[in-house]
Amino acid sequence: MSNFQNTLNGISGTTLLLDEDKCRANIHAMAQRAKNAGVMFRPHFKTHQSASVGKWFRDEGVECITVSSVDMAAYFADHGWDNITIAFPVNIRELTKIKKLSSRIRLNLLVEDAETVKHLDASGIETDLFIKIDVGAGRTGIAVESTDEIISLAQAINLTKGLILRGLLTHAGHTYRAVGAAGIQEIADKSAKEMKFLRSAIGDDSLMLSWGDTPSCSLMQHNPGFDEWRPGNFVFYDVMQYHIGSCSLDKIAVAMACPVVAVHQSRSQIVISGGAIHFSKESIRADNSFQLFGYVVEFTDSGWGNPVAGAWLDSVSQEHGVVTLPEEMCRRLKPGSLIGILPVHSCLSVAAMKELTTLNGYRMYCMK
Amino acid sequence: MSNFQNTLNGISGTTLLLDEDKCRANIHAMAQRAKNAGVMFRPHFKTHQSASVGKWFRDEGVECITVSSVDMAAYFADHGWDNITIAFPVNIRELTKIKKLSSRIRLNLLVEDAETVKHLDASGIETDLFIKIDVGAGRTGIAVESTDEIISLAQAINLTKGLILRGLLTHAGHTYRAVGAAGIQEIADKSAKEMKFLRSAIGDDSLMLSWGDTPSCSLMQHNPGFDEWRPGNFVFYDVMQYHIGSCSLDKIAVAMACPVVAVHQSRSQIVISGGAIHFSKESIRADNSFQLFGYVVEFTDSGWGNPVAGAWLDSVSQEHGVVTLPEEMCRRLKPGSLIGILPVHSCLSVAAMKELTTLNGYRMYCMK
Repeated sequence: MSNFQNTLNGISGTTLLLDEDKCRANIHAMAQRAKNAGVMFRPHFKTHQSASVGKWFRDEGVECITVSSVDMAAYFADHGWDNITIAFPVNIRELTKIKKLSSRIRLNLLVEDAETVKHLDASGIETDLFIKIDVGAGRTGIAVESTDEIISLAQAINLTKGLILRGLLTHAGHTYRAVGAAGIQEIADKSAKEMKFLRSAIGDDSLMLSWGDTPSCSLMQHNPGFDEWRPGNFVFYDVMQYHIGSCSLDKIAVAMACPVVAVHQSRSQIVISGGAIHFSKESIRADNSFQLFGYVVEFTDSGWGNPVAGAWLDSVSQEHGVVTLPEEMCRRLKPGSLIGILPVHSCLSVAAMKELTTLNGYRMYCMK
Repeated sequence: MSNFQNTLNGISGTTLLLDEDKCRANIHAMAQRAKNAGVMFRPHFKTHQSASVGKWFRDEGVECITVSSVDMAAYFADHGWDNITIAFPVNIRELTKIKKLSSRIRLNLLVEDAETVKHLDASGIETDLFIKIDVGAGRTGIAVESTDEIISLAQAINLTKGLILRGLLTHAGHTYRAVGAAGIQEIADKSAKEMKFLRSAIGDDSLMLSWGDTPSCSLMQHNPGFDEWRPGNFVFYDVMQYHIGSCSLDKIAVAMACPVVAVHQSRSQIVISGGAIHFSKESIRADNSFQLFGYVVEFTDSGWGNPVAGAWLDSVSQEHGVVTLPEEMCRRLKPGSLIGILPVHSCLSVAAMKELTTLNGYRMYCMK
């Protein structure tokens, strides 16, 4: 019996499986893309949240990382990472924790207003900063057109002892809504031009231009002038990235193994142990109110194949998932069978599960 | 300074607050409603998942409970609960855990097919069973019209040594889509009639008819013949229940305290630490693509007020939430301010946070 069959046989409840080979290949490919683009590779670790997966990045020469919270930074600092960007605006209620951390490792923080800079100053934190720029995603950051506000914030930082302005950082979340590689390249080109203009306006050529997001880092044909890339999701990819075009289906490195608990032959559906507490409620909506929460895969001797045509996770409640299947497949399944679900959003599935199991049955914990 | 002000001052990160008074009042009101309806009250504990909140149910005389997983049953068994229904179809991959548990406490399990009964028999588990009936929700259970299939399953159970058929159980999830109290009563009346017919068809008057869901248990004007109620969400309620009409806004007993990390005056929005990992991605959609992930409340000296008109949680990514606010309120907020968000679905927020903090600052853990 293969190791993987042993792993499957040992599964009693909903389990997030990780294909190490696919994952390592994703890491290698992105490290190569960054090298070819001539940028520093500072991957976002919020997708996997695991010290074990972190080691696979070390094997590719990665030394600098991105995280999304102070707690996540502290976790990876405990596991030997000493150069970390927290890509979330400073929460001034966490200054005590931040100060402690900044004395242990080299930390980069994000600011977007003068008041936060004053609080950092008052707390005596010595750290490097990036100004968060909004190039069009509309979530947070100073709008890239607000040149005066950005120059003024840069000056305020430069006048503050202990704080060093390292660069301008953006997350172009609107690449998720762009159409195709050309649309994504267009966003990257425009953003780079605008950020280079800002760097000149501030008058400091040494400022780094930091760029993130998996769709653009997977699809950009040329790097228009960024100095570092911070993609995260590519480590596992998911159904949403497949829909955007960032990856092929065989690059998705995680699948939720879900026990079948009921078979409804008459409506060609099964019920699985796998719901909102495992997948979150991220979905993809298409025309005619069609909505899906994941693709269905069947397990093989060594992993899983491509998604089954005509099969999808149709709805999720707290623990239940209802899966629609072709009749033939429905007939083959019974209570106790295991099916795999490729998640729509792997980051949220990992955050919900806090545990990954490799095909060999090795359990890896996330943030614990 | 009030205890609650002390609690707020101590908050650094996103925190799920619980108003004990509101929660106890919700428990008391539902216990009274069940008493007046002449039914056994077997509340679903999946909403709070907390041994501490469980004690408040004990204070109302509750001795029998419902949970949604074997692990949750084991957790509450460890905290003194010895009569538990697991309202999720038996997952035969968990028979070892189930057997262990069934030897410690009085357990009720859900079955909906003969194959699972055979597995229970083969494993030597002695337990009570309910047949899961689908009265129209379309999630799982045997369709209520399939009289022959249900009779045949009842016979299979009765012929199995060690297994005792206790009743028929349904979760009328379609009450969530019903229009008003009259629509909900209609579903309850129809379902009760159908389940009474099934009980007669099986020929065992002692079978219990078990009924769940917060909308119907909150709104039913008369009990059409059920023997027990298993609502869960009512313990905290949430924005979805308010929309259905199950509760008034002042009965919502949980609010997520979220630090403000950025203020965008120009678009009257703020960014909070509070995203999909705290709220899941449950939302309410209305006409014109309007979508909201939570209501906004302001904290007072002793808790929080009603939601602010014209304010809502507009979008969530992994950790970020973008909140739209009236201009006046936006002007008052700054980085480090705290606002409250009433969640769309309190069960999922609790499952994501795994911790509740009372207004007095007492921290209560969920399933740990």
